[in-house]
Formats: sequence, structure tokens, C-alpha cells
Amino acid sequence: MSPIPGLSCVGILGGGVIGGGWAARFLLNGVDVKMYDPDPEAPRKVGEVLDNARRAMHKLVASPLPPEGSLTFVDTPEDAATGVQFVQESAPERLELKQMLLQRASTAAGPEVVFGSSTSGLLPTDMQRGMTHPERLVVGHPFNPVYLLPLVEVVGGEQTSTAALGEAAAIYESLGMQPVRLEHEIDGFVADRLLEALWREALWLVNDGIATVEEIDDCVRYGAGLRWSFMGTFLTYRIAGGEAGMRHFMAQFGPSLQWPWSKLTDVPELTDELLDKLVAQSDEQARGRTIRELERHRDDSLVAVMQGLRATHNGAGLVLDRYERQLFARAGSHHVEHDLDAPLRLYEATVPVDWVDYNGHMNDSRFFQVTSEAGDRLMRFIGVDEQYLTHSSYYTVESHVNFGAQAKAGDRLYATVQLLSHDAKRLHHFTSIHRADDDTLVATAEHMMLHVDTAAGRSSPAAPALLATLDELAAHHGSLPRPAHAGRFVGQPRG
Amino acid sequence: MSPIPGLSCVGILGGGVIGGGWAARFLLNGVDVKMYDPDPEAPRKVGEVLDNARRAMHKLVASPLPPEGSLTFVDTPEDAATGVQFVQESAPERLELKQMLLQRASTAAGPEVVFGSSTSGLLPTDMQRGMTHPERLVVGHPFNPVYLLPLVEVVGGEQTSTAALGEAAAIYESLGMQPVRLEHEIDGFVADRLLEALWREALWLVNDGIATVEEIDDCVRYGAGLRWSFMGTFLTYRIAGGEAGMRHFMAQFGPSLQWPWSKLTDVPELTDELLDKLVAQSDEQARGRTIRELERHRDDSLVAVMQGLRATHNGAGLVLDRYERQLFARAGSHHVEHDLDAPLRLYEATVPVDWVDYNGHMNDSRFFQVTSEAGDRLMRFIGVDEQYLTHSSYYTVESHVNFGAQAKAGDRLYATVQLLSHDAKRLHHFTSIHRADDDTLVATAEHMMLHVDTAAGRSSPAAPALLATLDELAAHHGSLPRPAHAGRFVGQPRG
Repeated sequence: MSPIPGLSCVGILGGGVIGGGWAARFLLNGVDVKMYDPDPEAPRKVGEVLDNARRAMHKLVASPLPPEGSLTFVDTPEDAATGVQFVQESAPERLELKQMLLQRASTAAGPEVVFGSSTSGLLPTDMQRGMTHPERLVVGHPFNPVYLLPLVEVVGGEQTSTAALGEAAAIYESLGMQPVRLEHEIDGFVADRLLEALWREALWLVNDGIATVEEIDDCVRYGAGLRWSFMGTFLTYRIAGGEAGMRHFMAQFGPSLQWPWSKLTDVPELTDELLDKLVAQSDEQARGRTIRELERHRDDSLVAVMQGLRATHNGAGLVLDRYERQLFARAGSHHVEHDLDAPLRLYEATVPVDWVDYNGHMNDSRFFQVTSEAGDRLMRFIGVDEQYLTHSSYYTVESHVNFGAQAKAGDRLYATVQLLSHDAKRLHHFTSIHRADDDTLVATAEHMMLHVDTAAGRSSPAAPALLATLDELAAHHGSLPRPAHAGRFVGQPRG
Repeated sequence: MSPIPGLSCVGILGGGVIGGGWAARFLLNGVDVKMYDPDPEAPRKVGEVLDNARRAMHKLVASPLPPEGSLTFVDTPEDAATGVQFVQESAPERLELKQMLLQRASTAAGPEVVFGSSTSGLLPTDMQRGMTHPERLVVGHPFNPVYLLPLVEVVGGEQTSTAALGEAAAIYESLGMQPVRLEHEIDGFVADRLLEALWREALWLVNDGIATVEEIDDCVRYGAGLRWSFMGTFLTYRIAGGEAGMRHFMAQFGPSLQWPWSKLTDVPELTDELLDKLVAQSDEQARGRTIRELERHRDDSLVAVMQGLRATHNGAGLVLDRYERQLFARAGSHHVEHDLDAPLRLYEATVPVDWVDYNGHMNDSRFFQVTSEAGDRLMRFIGVDEQYLTHSSYYTVESHVNFGAQAKAGDRLYATVQLLSHDAKRLHHFTSIHRADDDTLVATAEHMMLHVDTAAGRSSPAAPALLATLDELAAHHGSLPRPAHAGRFVGQPRG
């Protein structure tokens, strides 16, 4: 595995949370790092960030990562800039300190080496003053945790060259980041200005006793925060404006800007010029997508984000989890009303767009997902609940799938499950997946499951109550015809 | 399936995007809806919201949904409130209009029926004036799309009863939402105050030509917005303060509040009293979790959110996708140099967080996903490319999977593929999935694939070039030992 082309070693000035995060980005991309930080605790602190970063990055990417680069701590800023192809500065936010580090390091670096600064508020024009080759100083402002969040604001000062801006952006992109180029330097750049505005309003709300710290955070993470993970304020409001778009939204809600809704009341005047500018830029951002398209993309993304958060037991994911438990509980009466003399109809799903692959129909692995979900419903049916799962579960040990007809996005599917056999430890069942509109059989799946003591990690007999339910089910399903595809092996001629 | 206990029919006043979203929430939870909206376009508009909601909800929840409730449009606000157990008002934001609707509807509703108002800015004390039983009026302020976002701000006016607040919150929770109770009514409540502050600052940035609409949105969705989907500003800053926590953070960054970083410069004075309040509320929010625990929970959630967005091709998910392609390309030399005398090592993956199920390890359907991906790589290896897919493809007709060891989140897996047999139309292959760190065999899968003329929809012989590649591969793989699990049927005793 080759590392990033042309980048084998970089220098980093400052080893706090941000400098450590940069070190992790480079090291995990196979680039060596020379780190300068006078704090004797720096190696420990950087090591902790790197531990977190390794853990997270290996979960994040499906692709192989190159062998990790090597990390060396050096004694001077000059050492950190010697023999490297790029330097990132992440010292504390004091202009004189940053100027001193950049000046010293720039005397030692090759003349073509670009310098990025992580400053969140200082101006590049001030920082580049006194540097050897000041034209190579670029602000590259990242966000915590640097090893995961893609955003890096890229902006130059009065002396900064276009080439340096381009090279810094390319390097950040090769690390898996998303550079956003800003035309003008201002205090706090763009992202931190937005964060500061929200933060100041939040402080007022606490100060005035309107809401607590936790309630304010909840008002973000259960609402607008979910949208903000993939869509900013302007696109949100474009959608809110409906087919009439941004101009309509501004006409409807622009006046409320004058309401005293914020302690921070200075508001730009909504001149025709500003309005035209907003509308034109919003049109460009939408790239011709209709409101309906934008809505569905928004909804699919909200679904994906909430499902992701369910897996990590956080925020809206916990709300979704609680809601599903409610729905399952409300569906509980179903379990009693099942007709035991037929395969149990346990699961339904509508084929979502992202289940369709390059062949234009539902991917084979999604059929397995459906039969797996149906199997989960069978588990609940026989009594495997949250309490039971604290000590025991059934694990799938062997499965066989036959694919018949295709399914397309939007098709409604249902799955029925037939018990073929069971004993104290084993459960052998058969799923048939049908299209709901015409009952076409689209796929079948046969599974052998093993009852497991999860703490001990080995097979064990199921609880008597479960076995009693299985016995009762078997008494009925035993007289059903055996499915034609049961017991097949791959390559067996069709009967 | 029973609907929500005690809730079989509700009234909704106003059928715009918000009223339509509420209707969808209730209908999809099996509750009947009586809708009043004088706009003749309302049925069409509500129908469009409901279409979106059905599509999204069926993707969102794994649990069964009850039979949809019935939607009836009625002619007066009184009709909408007759014979219902709850009323939600979502009319345009004009106080007199809302007062008129609430007054009329409250004369017709039973005395115990609670009224929720979707207002985003008006005070409940003003709205409840003149209502029959004004104590039952509660603000329940939702966010768009109402059928997906969990947040609903719940706050009462001077006359509102505690019982009404509790009942409204319970109803919202039964719909899968997250009520946040606010102690005091203020213009704009909490969430919209935060949104307004950010929005006003954003307008300044456009007005001053610092950044475009799209750049500003990008500065949210690639950075802080990803965090905001599960964590608000205060918890973010607590983590930024490190082990020393919130007081340390405020000591370090409090002074920057006085910097001119925002056009909206009114800032609360950081008195000892405010500081103590912030620290105490932040401690309570953290519930004893250490910074390291909070960091890892944050990282796992960021990983899950970005992986979710990769699946929906949005924002940071696209950045991740591009980054993975870069990594695969950098690792590219691996793929060309295949040793034909061994099973082909065609696919690698790190187990993401959301592949893990309630048993604490990788879900069985995800193993099928891995073998399916490996099969896709085999297709590419033998020459099935974009061009070939325009007329022909291989479809999976039968599969068999054996599950051995477990895999956990973060485990690195690789898959090898062995060709068992082939003819002009058929391709029989065998995948072995290993854990990379110790080469443990975790699962195997056997597949029969059929070559298909996709336009005609029937089997056809593969192109000569593909068959030549298969012949060459077979000449090598024919002398490999046959995998122990090939040809098995479910229930066959282990050899």
C-alpha cells in the first residue's frame, strides 16, 4: 500500500487535542510525523488522542488503511520543519506565540513547504508577518475530533499565494477531509461565527432561567441538529419554502427577523440586493433538484442518521428504540391471534431505494436481511425478550437461500415462517418471502439456529417456557407440507 | 395490533406542511384524523406529506406499524373537535386566527380533551384567552419533517394545568417523539431562538460577502452539524474542557465571548453565579460519565452517522466514500497481482458499529452482505464491467452459508473466493470470510450464479472473454482442495 503521493513526513507544532488529532490523521494515512510541543505531558496527551483515533478510524473505513506512520517528538520548531513536506501549526490561540513558532519553523523548512495553521480566530495576514516565505501560510481550521470531522476551513492572508491554498486543500482532501475555501479572512471565519452566535443565545437562555444546559442541548439534538448533520440552514429553509423556493420563504419569514426572538438583535436589512443574492445562491446550491427530490433525500438521510444513532444508543436513536418497543408491545396481541395451522406471517417491509443494486432490483443480501428479520420475529414469538437476552439467545449456524423472482424498490414484501423441527438446543425453520400485491414467492430461506448461553459462550438447552411454545407450534406445523426447497444443497438439480 | 391506548381519533386544525406532518404521525400510528382546513388545496397537500411520511416511516422502524388510521376532512373547527380525544392546532402564525380556531373548537370538544398548538413563536397565555376550558391549551411545537424529527417543545401558559402538560407529553411520546418540557414561555421558545441566532449570523455572512449560502451550509454539515445530530453545544464544550470539565472550558474560552466574533454582540456577563449554574447543570447532564467515555460515545456516534450518510449519498457520507476510493486506489496494486493458485483475496472490510445486533456481534445478514460484496469483486475480476452490465449480468439463484466464529465492531475481515465449477451459463463459487488479525475462519458461503440476458430476462451464455477467464481460473482452482462445507444442506451432521 502506497502512502499519499508526495507526502511521507510532516511537521506538527503543538500537541494538544487539535495537534494530536492532526498527528492521528497523518499517521493513520501512513505519513510520518515530527511533533514539537514543549509540554512534557505532550507525548501522553497525543498518545491518548491517537488511541481514540485508531479505534474510530478502523470502525469508520471499509477500505484497508496503510501501515501507520511513525511519530517522533523533537526539541525545537526548527527540527519539526526540517526534512518535511508540510507543516501544521496548532499552538494555543496567542498571536505572538504563533508568530514566533511560524517564524522559527519557516527558517528551517524547504522554501516550497506549505504551512497550515489551525487557528480558530486569528487572521492569517497577522500570522504570516515575519515568516520566511510568508506566501505559504494558509489557515486550515479543523474541528474536534480532527480525526473524524471532515470540515477544514481554508483561507489565506494578504500575502498568501494561490498555489499554497491549493496545495493545502489537496493535502487535507487526501486525509479524507472536506476543505471549504473562504474568499475573505475575518475573525472567527465562518463556522465559529455560527457556533458563537448559537452559544451566546444559549448562555442567555441559561442566564435567564428559561432552560437548563441539558434541555437546550436536547432542543438541538432531537430536532434541527439531526438535519444539520447533512444539510445547513439555507437548504433547510429552501425546502420549507416549498416549490416556490427561497424567495417565497424569505417573503413569509423575513419579517420575523425583526421580532425580538433573540437577545442578539442586530439583523441585516433585507434589501432587494441581499434577497436577490440569497435566491441566486440558493438556486445554485439546489442544482436543479426539485423540492420533492430534496425532501426525499432529506428523509432518507434522517432515517439513516437515526438508525445509526440507534446502533450507538445515543439521542434520537434511543427515542427510535423506545418507539419500536412501544410498537412491538402494541403489536403483542398479534402473537396470540396467529393462525398456528399456517406458516406464521411475521414480517413485512417495503423495499427501500438503497436495497436496489446495479442490476436494478433488490440485492441478494437484502433478502437475507429480510429472512433474518423474520427470524428475529420468530424469536420474540417463542418468548426471547429483552430479559431473556441478558443470559441466552439463539445464534444462526447454517442458512440456505433460494432466489426466485425479483423485487423492485417500493415493492411490499411479507415473510412467513414455518417450523421444520426443534429439540432442546436446535431450531430448524423455513422462511418464504412473498410480494404482497400478487403473493408471488420471491425467495425462500432455511435456517438452523442453536440456543446459546451467551455468558458461557456455548450451546445450552432453551428455557422450558420456550420449548413449550415450540412444542405447541410443532404440533400444528408438523402437518404442513414440507417446503419444496427445504434440505437442498447448492448445485442440486431442481426437482 | 392495538392503536395507542385511549387514542382512537384526533382533530387537526390546519393542513399545511406541519398539520400534514401531524396527520401522518397520527395516521401511521393507527389513529383516525379529522382535519379542518378551509384551503381547497389542503387534501392534495396533506396527501403529498402523507406519501413522504409513509415512505420514510416504513424505512425507519423495524417494528410492524398498525393499520393506518382514516383521514376525514371536515367543514368547521367545531367538527374537527367533535368526538375526538385530542386536538392539534397548526394554523398560520397569526394570533387572532389561532385564537378564533381554538375558541370555536373548544366549545365543541369534550371538557377533558387537551389542545396542543404547533406555534413556533406565540405565547400560550395569549392563545388560551377566550377558550372554553383554557387550562387545557398546551404548546407542542414540532420540527419539520414532523413525521421524522422527534423534538416537540412542550410549554404551558399562565392558565395551563399540569395535567394537560402531562397528557400532551404522553401523547407525543406515544407517537415516537421526544417532548422537552420548558418551564417558562418566551417568544420563540428555545430551539427557534438558537436557530434564529445562527440564521441571523448566516445572513450577515452572505450580506458581507464573506461566504456563499452553500459554503455556509457546508461549514455546518461537514463539521459541528455532525456532532449536533446527537450532542448539543454544552456537552461538546464540556468534552473540549477535558478532565477539568466545564469550569476549565469557561475559564479558557469565556474571555473570547467579549471578542467581536459575531455581528450579534450582546453577551451575558459571566458572573460567578452564572458560572456556578453552568457547571452544576453540566455536571448533572454528564451523569458521572468521564471525558474518555463521552469521547468514545461521541466517536462511535460520529462513525455511525457518517456511515449512515454514506448509504444515502449525502454530505459527510460522500466525503467518506471519496476517501475510501482513494484508499482502495492507493492499495490498488494488491488487486492486480492475484495469485491464481490460491482462493482469490477479493474483499476486505472493517465491521462497522451498525452491523452489530442485539447479540453484541455482527448480524448474520451482514455476513451475507460481505460474501455478496466478494461475489461482486469476482464479477469484476472475470470482466463484468459497466459496459457488460448494460446487456448481461450474473444473478444469484441459490446460496448456502455456514456461521462459525463471531465478529465484533472494529474487527477487520477479509474474504477469499474459490471457483468450484462453471459452464457457459452457470458459475459456482465459494467464499471464506476470515478475521484478519488471526486468520480465524468466521463464515463460509457457497453460491450458484446464473448468467442472464437482462433485456430478455432469461438465462444466456456468458461472453467468450469471460468464459476464457473462468477457464483459466478453473485450471488453477481445480487442483485446490474442495472446501469442507461445500455441498452441505441445512441439518446435515457435521463431518
